[in-house]
Amino acid sequence: IETKLPKVGTTIFSVMSHLAVQHKAVNLGQGFPDFEPPQALRDALNRAMSNGLNQYAPGIGTAALREQVALKTERLYGHKVSPDSDVTITSGATEALFAAIAAVVRAGDEVIVFDPAYDSYEPAIDLQGARAVHIPLTVPSFSIDWQRVRDAITPKTRMILINSPHNPSGAVLSAADLDELAAIVRDTPIVVLSDEVYEHIVYDGAVHQSVLRHAELAARSIVVSSFGKTYHCTGWKVGYAVAPAKLSAEFRKVHQYLTFCTFHPAQAAFAEFLASTPEHYMELPAFYQAKRDRFRSLLAPSRLKLLDVPGGYFQLVDYSAIRNEDDLAFCEWLVKEGGVAAIPLTPFYDKAPGTHLVRLCFAKSDATMEAAAERLCKL
Amino acid sequence: IETKLPKVGTTIFSVMSHLAVQHKAVNLGQGFPDFEPPQALRDALNRAMSNGLNQYAPGIGTAALREQVALKTERLYGHKVSPDSDVTITSGATEALFAAIAAVVRAGDEVIVFDPAYDSYEPAIDLQGARAVHIPLTVPSFSIDWQRVRDAITPKTRMILINSPHNPSGAVLSAADLDELAAIVRDTPIVVLSDEVYEHIVYDGAVHQSVLRHAELAARSIVVSSFGKTYHCTGWKVGYAVAPAKLSAEFRKVHQYLTFCTFHPAQAAFAEFLASTPEHYMELPAFYQAKRDRFRSLLAPSRLKLLDVPGGYFQLVDYSAIRNEDDLAFCEWLVKEGGVAAIPLTPFYDKAPGTHLVRLCFAKSDATMEAAAERLCKL
Ligand SMILES: CSCCC(=O)C(=O)O
Ligand SMILES: CSCCC(=O)C(=O)O
Repeated sequence: IETKLPKVGTTIFSVMSHLAVQHKAVNLGQGFPDFEPPQALRDALNRAMSNGLNQYAPGIGTAALREQVALKTERLYGHKVSPDSDVTITSGATEALFAAIAAVVRAGDEVIVFDPAYDSYEPAIDLQGARAVHIPLTVPSFSIDWQRVRDAITPKTRMILINSPHNPSGAVLSAADLDELAAIVRDTPIVVLSDEVYEHIVYDGAVHQSVLRHAELAARSIVVSSFGKTYHCTGWKVGYAVAPAKLSAEFRKVHQYLTFCTFHPAQAAFAEFLASTPEHYMELPAFYQAKRDRFRSLLAPSRLKLLDVPGGYFQLVDYSAIRNEDDLAFCEWLVKEGGVAAIPLTPFYDKAPGTHLVRLCFAKSDATMEAAAERLCKL
Repeated sequence: IETKLPKVGTTIFSVMSHLAVQHKAVNLGQGFPDFEPPQALRDALNRAMSNGLNQYAPGIGTAALREQVALKTERLYGHKVSPDSDVTITSGATEALFAAIAAVVRAGDEVIVFDPAYDSYEPAIDLQGARAVHIPLTVPSFSIDWQRVRDAITPKTRMILINSPHNPSGAVLSAADLDELAAIVRDTPIVVLSDEVYEHIVYDGAVHQSVLRHAELAARSIVVSSFGKTYHCTGWKVGYAVAPAKLSAEFRKVHQYLTFCTFHPAQAAFAEFLASTPEHYMELPAFYQAKRDRFRSLLAPSRLKLLDVPGGYFQLVDYSAIRNEDDLAFCEWLVKEGGVAAIPLTPFYDKAPGTHLVRLCFAKSDATMEAAAERLCKL
């Protein structure tokens, strides 16, 4: 059998997690916390199992959870959406991204993505017979050069995929960025796909500029998020998509045949927890900012150069004072010889720009951060 | 936005479950039990959450669960597979079916499906830019006319999709059927996709003829199954695919970008329960045969004609003595006026054959079956 995805191997996140285990390294690679979801959330899940919620959930998600997503969307972003027609629960953000691309993008279309980009975007685009058009973000701010976007638009452009807070850099889009985007897509058939899984993790008093704050963009966007990053349970795989009714209808057609529905007890648990404890996500910026600051001061004595981190839970570091090799080679060396698993930036690029950057996850306990820092400061 | 799936509306299973709630009908539509998964399984899931298995599982599934699937495959079907390279855990069988089709089928290809067919197959094929070639099963046995298959093969045929025990009819393939299939695909590039989610539910002493029993077919097949039907937890959405290493590699490339991984605590729970309680699936045929027989005797006084049920947990009934209308109209009338939700057969067909059949699920408690039968016998 000839492959349909010649450029694809095993995703770098699996590769590095595997190497971390193999070499007993401190794993700051794949993005997940090493602490637990709230006890009340786990209790709610267990209760849902005891209460008989073990059969199919509605394909679009439980009414209670869609209602909570709609409430949150209105409370945080001032945008009213209908839980019945605009919100769909998915098996993680990855499924939502794939469903959005499969529902909208056709063979021959072009999709604009910004590099470095999360590695699932391009294969999902390729599988539609479409083409990813890569625009590099401006380093080291990882901001969008909107003139390059304007220049890249063609009659085939079907979708623009944005991601803020950005993985891997943590860069956040501004309100002015959204205005630029709105001006570009106005009077075109372009759909915006906005990956906002780190929506609740922005620092230094910044405000997350969800596409849902921007009425004109919200009317033509599919916004994807996830409970995994927010509630410290990346392995629960519950995400969602918010989109206007017509876009949601197309999204749902695909979603119902991708996974049909999502683990039912977790949906009940999230609905209960969001209703009872909305302050959880309000406290998340301070929670992660303390970790970011702690991690940065632990790394201050190292020879790694620390880039700014406006959002998300990753620290980009420039390792060129330590070794002169490409990111993947450095990460392989680091996991074996340095005892720390990191994520190289090159796999996030179509054409890597020759920077020497790797990504470290600081969604970790103090002990983990300290163990990693001790090793990293020795390099 | 123009739809990519013009033939698709909301899946009939969601439509009928929704109507069942709305009309307070006894729901024998969508295929799920109204009883609970084993307490030990739910306890194991809860324990997994307490033991910190709340972050990403390996994308291909936990080693322990893949090991259990491999053991079961060898024990039941005499087929040795590698947990590392041949078994992949998915977010339900629906995801596995979609990933298999997306990994193998290309634009312009043809995929042979047998009607009546589960409604996710064709949209998954359509989204590849490929074409489903529909071959009707012979009614009322719902058996395959292999001459029609031979006649349908073209150089574009890329996949044959089989399903035994069959949804909706319960028909089971024989060893002779597998030999016919093997002869047809020999010396072609055709991949077999075998949907075996009801593998443990066959009656009257029959033996499930898994494609995995047939070495020649197993070498070119992707076999999909699920824990939802076997362990009475359709809402947990854990399935899997078994395929030779090369096919699995392509399958995994797609799977990792469809959902990346599956709800972690359930994987731990299934691994533990399969290891400790292999007799659960051994007892399933007797468990469901008693339900089938009870349901059939409850319906004996009705004006419904009962078709044979060799496997699965659905009873097909011919309603033509009651009303002369198409299946969907009958089901709409039945849920509103008769107080029972059923599934029409027409949506399983490309070209409905003019039979008057609907599907009733008997994976139900005695009380539910009795309540439904009381209403059905009044028609
Ligand atoms: C789905 S594995 C990758 C998780 C993640 O978001 C990351 O590490 O970037
Ligand atoms: C995924 S909803 C349909 C469940 C099922 O297998 C059926 O009812 O046929």
